[in-house]
This record gives sequence, structure tokens and C-alpha cells, in this order.
Amino acid sequence: MTYLNETHDPKLRSWVESANAEGNGFPIQNLPFGVFRRINSAEQFRPGVAIGNQVLDLAALAEAQPFSGAAAEALAACTGDSLNALMALGQAHWSALRLALSRALRAESSQQPLLAPLLVAQDDIEHSVPAHIGDYTDFYISLHHATAVGKQFRPDNPLLPNYKWVPIGYHGRASSIGVSGQRFPRPVGQTRPTSEGAAPNFGPCLRLDYELELGVFVGQGNAQGERVSIEQAESHVFGLCILNDWSARDIQAWEYQPLGPFLSKNFASTISPWIVTLEALAPFRTASTRAATDPQPLPYLFAAENAAAGSFDIGLEVLLSTEKSRAARAEPAVLSRSNFKEAFWNVAQLVTHHTVNGCNLQPGDMLGTGTLSGPAAGQEGSMLEMNQGGKKPIELTWGEQRMFLQDGDEVILRARCEKAGYPAISLGECAGMVLPAQV
Amino acid sequence: MTYLNETHDPKLRSWVESANAEGNGFPIQNLPFGVFRRINSAEQFRPGVAIGNQVLDLAALAEAQPFSGAAAEALAACTGDSLNALMALGQAHWSALRLALSRALRAESSQQPLLAPLLVAQDDIEHSVPAHIGDYTDFYISLHHATAVGKQFRPDNPLLPNYKWVPIGYHGRASSIGVSGQRFPRPVGQTRPTSEGAAPNFGPCLRLDYELELGVFVGQGNAQGERVSIEQAESHVFGLCILNDWSARDIQAWEYQPLGPFLSKNFASTISPWIVTLEALAPFRTASTRAATDPQPLPYLFAAENAAAGSFDIGLEVLLSTEKSRAARAEPAVLSRSNFKEAFWNVAQLVTHHTVNGCNLQPGDMLGTGTLSGPAAGQEGSMLEMNQGGKKPIELTWGEQRMFLQDGDEVILRARCEKAGYPAISLGECAGMVLPAQV
Repeated sequence: MTYLNETHDPKLRSWVESANAEGNGFPIQNLPFGVFRRINSAEQFRPGVAIGNQVLDLAALAEAQPFSGAAAEALAACTGDSLNALMALGQAHWSALRLALSRALRAESSQQPLLAPLLVAQDDIEHSVPAHIGDYTDFYISLHHATAVGKQFRPDNPLLPNYKWVPIGYHGRASSIGVSGQRFPRPVGQTRPTSEGAAPNFGPCLRLDYELELGVFVGQGNAQGERVSIEQAESHVFGLCILNDWSARDIQAWEYQPLGPFLSKNFASTISPWIVTLEALAPFRTASTRAATDPQPLPYLFAAENAAAGSFDIGLEVLLSTEKSRAARAEPAVLSRSNFKEAFWNVAQLVTHHTVNGCNLQPGDMLGTGTLSGPAAGQEGSMLEMNQGGKKPIELTWGEQRMFLQDGDEVILRARCEKAGYPAISLGECAGMVLPAQV
Repeated sequence: MTYLNETHDPKLRSWVESANAEGNGFPIQNLPFGVFRRINSAEQFRPGVAIGNQVLDLAALAEAQPFSGAAAEALAACTGDSLNALMALGQAHWSALRLALSRALRAESSQQPLLAPLLVAQDDIEHSVPAHIGDYTDFYISLHHATAVGKQFRPDNPLLPNYKWVPIGYHGRASSIGVSGQRFPRPVGQTRPTSEGAAPNFGPCLRLDYELELGVFVGQGNAQGERVSIEQAESHVFGLCILNDWSARDIQAWEYQPLGPFLSKNFASTISPWIVTLEALAPFRTASTRAATDPQPLPYLFAAENAAAGSFDIGLEVLLSTEKSRAARAEPAVLSRSNFKEAFWNVAQLVTHHTVNGCNLQPGDMLGTGTLSGPAAGQEGSMLEMNQGGKKPIELTWGEQRMFLQDGDEVILRARCEKAGYPAISLGECAGMVLPAQV
């Protein structure tokens, strides 16, 4: 595989012992970036990189100037309260910093004495949204989700004629994106009138749902008017996180025509704190899972290398805990499992499509994938799919049922790459909780 | 009228002589805010206020500390490269600064010797986008536009059942918003297949259009989870500008189902450089033009005072120049004239609706009104309406025709408030030009 370099050597071990524990998810082959400070401290939020159950304080490391060349330049960009400056430097710098960090954290590195005092236990930190997100775009790249949901809104016409040609996307709300641990009141709004011609209903959302997504962080942007080719697209991507695009289905059904979802989506979106770089994900590249009967993408969305290795094998998981389950100290219930590789469009295609009209992406912009449902039962990325449009309640292991989310429910999304002979690469966790409506 | 104070006295005159010229649009009763620097200079962009054909440098004025109390605090927020800090302070501060500026610029003000050296001729300046726009939302508040365009996309069902209940809106793209003078290449993209089931067409947009809108700048925001009541909504609004929401109709028709417009809109949006405060517009308040047969808004969107005086009488105008007209030194052709007061929803209703679900607005966010077409012929806010869906070309006075925009076309939007006995209040001009596609 052309993507692999010395940072991907599965035999690498770190002097941070917890990073070597099997399946810990943050081995030295991962090195995801986030922004953190000590819990409840008045410290400035600052960039860090996860290693085992620790985080390395990059702002403090930058003061010591331990690296040279591009790695030093990249580290010097890690002193603010977001990753935007690092993102703006581009792939060569990200890669140089990853290599320097990999060498410095490697077992028997001479830099251990310098770095060891700059570790903070992950249990002792809190995160902020890791980048200033200028614009947030949400796509719709799971054919399985589009088909399942399309059936409920348009029974006769689930998959529209544009789906297999256009990576369907729309703009989301950046201001209400929060980091894992986000809590938000149940949204209030208008819903469809009970009888045709009557006034709409108004009140707390009765069909509150999650959406299992990944977030793609743009690194280097493009100038307005200039396109990013499919061959160049991935070099503009800093990395991936997990995204829960909370959705008020009843508000959505009433408001979404003709201009798309709005208040049904923009009350809150939650992301995981760590951004795993595309370079860290390279061992999990895979071919597109498009069917041979699907049309070939238009030329601007097609490159042979991208079709062969532009998708990523990332296992996804949705868990739910409730007030009752937490009181009973029951483990969260696994609602579904899916995989990013099932998506119809891939990361490079999203970047290229987004810029084909000259739209400018900027460092820190986030592209949501859309709900990542798989083809089979048990792989649904939302409750709306599991409950078949609000008809079939979901049975929880401790005896409760759910049609949609209730107050106090916590949704936990996890993402993780696993394969034989390589350490597991975790994208961490994205948790969020629904509070009662403020009416 | 309860909205009037001493800054609205129509007899006020300024020691800046050009501000007293009849109909100049920037009299001492206006005092719009923008961000500027001398043309082609390396100066930092900084806030200024327009007066006659001059701009008063607020950053320089802040150094002199000429005001006290809230006005001084507001002026001290005018030293960065955007208006966001001033916007965040809230209405009482904006109003105090306006009053202090009005008094300082008034004929025979003792502060003339201090301020006069801080004036720069508007002919000598260039503007930046006046605020850092975190999120841009576009609404759809003209019933006339929604009906006319709805007929073309959905002949049998032009106005959807939600229209008179929900202020329909969707999220736009903040990164590609530019200030008057913006030039952008014609967007490229996918359009509907020529025959059903065939591959889509791909190439430069063939139906490029403008949209005549106003932009509403949010001043003070709201915390996530907290609603802004209809009574409080206007206190969160800093002011209005003109907005051209350029639209690629053929790209839109193919991509917009089911999640709304995306690449058809996000390649460029152009705004006028001056933000006219709601306080400056107070003399032009008017009642809603809803018909008596229209439903009363739901309670959260209704307040008696808002219904009586929450709309604004702002005359709007679209002009077009072409390469040919400019070569012939012909005046731009007036394509249409409309008025903001015809809108179905008003400014306060947009803010309240946007936050009813707990969505947080932030200082500098912009809400577009949507295309502000009037009810009659000659009042269309887009070419799509004038040409009846691409069927009837528009005749230009110098002998050309246009179905949609051609390369080199410049669209100029103007907005202005006029009434007997009061100086005209201009929102300035929003000009933008289409360049050839980059293919």
C-alpha cells in the first residue's frame, strides 16, 4: 500500500505504557489531535495529541522547540485555542509533525525526558470543539439511509433520480456544534397540523432522533473560484471525527419543503473530541462498495486510485443509556452497528463536489457524511430507521422501549478501526444527552 | 411614533456639507456602519460610519476618547477589523453611540475640530465584509416570490401548505460572502439529464440568476437552548444591508431534492458595505401587508406592536450593465423595483423563529430575507420570475436581450427609504459581476 510509512509500523511501541495495551485505541499508530484543558480549570484550551490514556500538551511542547523543519513549523502552529492554524499548513506539515511525534513517543526515544512531564491524564481533561468551524456542510452519502428514510417521506419514490450522480449535501449550522458531553434541551417548534388546513401543532418535539455520522475536517482550503480535483481532494482533509446530527423528525417533516431541513437540525450537533488524521487511517483504506450496476461517477468525481482505496473501513456503533438504565447501573444498550465503508460517496468525492462550483472551503470547515446506515437490519444509523417510521418500538435490554428519544436519554456513538495484525485505531466517543424542553 | 428620538429630527444638519445635500442618502439621520480602509493600502480594515460622501474613521476616533458612558464603551469596540465587538454589546450601546455621533457630527458641534481630520472620502476607500459572519441563514419571506418560483418547480402546487405558518429558511454558506464589487467565475456543475435515466449534463451554469434580498445582521446573540421572544427579537438585530444571493437555476433544479439548494447558491453571495441600523430605519416602519384572509401567526410569532410596525418601507431596485452597455457608456438598465414592506414575514419573526428550537445566534450572523419580489409585474426580484422560467427574454434598453446572466454582466442592487418631510436613507449599493467559467 502506497499510503504506509514508518508511523504505521504495527510493531511500534511507545514509552507511554498505556498506549501499548492491546485494543486501547490510542496506540502510537493513531496520534489524533484535539483541544483540551484540565477539567474545570481556568487554563486556556490548547492543542494536544492523544497517546494511550494520556494527552500530550502540544502548546507546552512547542515552547521547548524539540523539532526542526516542517515538524517544527507545524508544532509552532499548535499554540492557539483551536487546530485551525495547524490545519491551514497542509498535508506535508501534518505528516511531518506526525512523524516527529511518533519518533518522540516511541519506546526508547531520547525525547522521553522532555515529553513525559507534558502528559496529562485523559481522565483529568475537558475538551472544546477542536477547530473554529467556519461552515458546516452535511452530506447524505449512505444509499441505505437515503433509501430507508426516503421510503418514509416519499413511499413511491425513495431514492430520487439525482442520488447516484450528485453527492447530495446541504449547509448546516456551525454555532450549535458542541463537543462530546453536550447537553441540550429538547427542541420546541411547529409540526404538521392534525387535520389538513388546520393550524400547525406547536410544542416540544415528539420525534427526537440521533444520526450516526462522521465529520470530515477540512485542513487546507481553496480560493474562491478554484476547484479541488479528485486527485488533490484528500490532501485538503485534516482528518475525521464522530458526529451526531440530532434530528427533530416531526419538525423536519413540516418545515423541510421546499428548502430542506432547518430548525429540525440546528439546535445541536455533537462531535467527538479527537480528530484522527487520514494518515492514521491509511491502513484501513478500502475500495468503494458501489455495486457494479451503479453508474460510474462523472469524470470530475472519478479517479482510479480513489475508487480503489478512497473508502475507509471504520466500524461504527450506537449505544443508548437512559435515566432508568443509569439508575440500575446497567451498561448502555447497543442499538446498532455499521461501517463507514458502506457509504456510496467517499471523502475525496465530497471535497471535490463541494468545490466544483468554485465554493471556497476554509481550514476548520466540517463536512458531515450524513447518517451512515448499513444495508442490513441492525445497521440503522437512526431511530427513524429502526422503528420503521415510528411504528415499531425499540426494545432496550433493561426492559424499556423507545420509539424516539426521551428526556435524560444519552446517545453514545463510537468509531473504531480493527484488523488483524494492526493495533486498533479509535476515533473515540461522541456522547450527548437530551434535557427537558424549555417551554 | 414611539421609535423616534432626537437623532431622527428631520431638520438636523451636519457640518459635513455633503450630508445635507438633498437625497444624498447618507444624511446625519442615517449613520450606517461599515468596515473600510484606503483603496489598495496596506492599512488594517477598521470600522467607520458613513456621513454624506465621507466616512468617519471610528478606530481613529476611539483613540481620542471623545465620548463617555455607553457611547464610549461602544466606540472602544470599534477598533478591530470587523463590527462584531460592537454588535455584541447590544442595543443600548448601539443607540448611545449613534446619539453621540449624531451630536458630534451636527452643525455647530464643538467636536468638529476633532472629527474633521478623521474623515476619509468614500471615493478613496475600499470595504471588507463588515462582520465576521459565523453563520448565514437564508429565508424565503416573499409570498410573491415563493408563489412565482413555486409555479415553475411545482406547477400544481406553487405555495406549499407550510408557507403561511413557517418562516421557511435554510442555511447558506458564510465563506463565499463578499462585499459589493465581488467578481466570481460562473459556477460549473451538474444539471438535469437531457433524457430520463441518462447521465446528467456537466458544465458551466446556463441559467445564472441574481436574487434581490436584504441581509439582517444579528447583533447580540442568544445562548444555546434559550429562545428569543417576538417582543425581544428586534433588540438582537444590529441592522440591514443589501444582499444578492446569486443562484444557478439549472444546478438548483437537479440538486435540490430532497435537502434543498447547495452548490446552486454557495459559490458567491454579495452584500452592500454599509449596515443601516434598525434605529436609523425607525421612521420607515410600517404595518404588515398580510391580507386579512391570511392566518394569524402562531402566538410565538405574533405581537401586536410587531404586527403594527415591524415591517419597513424600503424601496429596492435591480439594475444591470453588460459589456456592451459599458462599452457604449449606457446607463445600467433598471430591471425591476420592489419594496421590503411587501414581505410576508418580518425581521423580528425571523429571529424568533430561528431561535424557537434553542438554536443560538451569534453577533455577526446574517439572515437573508430571500428574494423580495412584489406582487406586480416589474417587481420581480430575480430573472427567473421576469423571464417566466426561461421562456420570455428580458429586453435591455440598448438593444440586447437576456434570459439569464451572461459573462461580464454586472448586477447592481440598490435600497433606499424615502418619504415626504424626511431625508432619504440609503442602504447603498450591492454590485457584483459574473466572470467566465473556469473549466
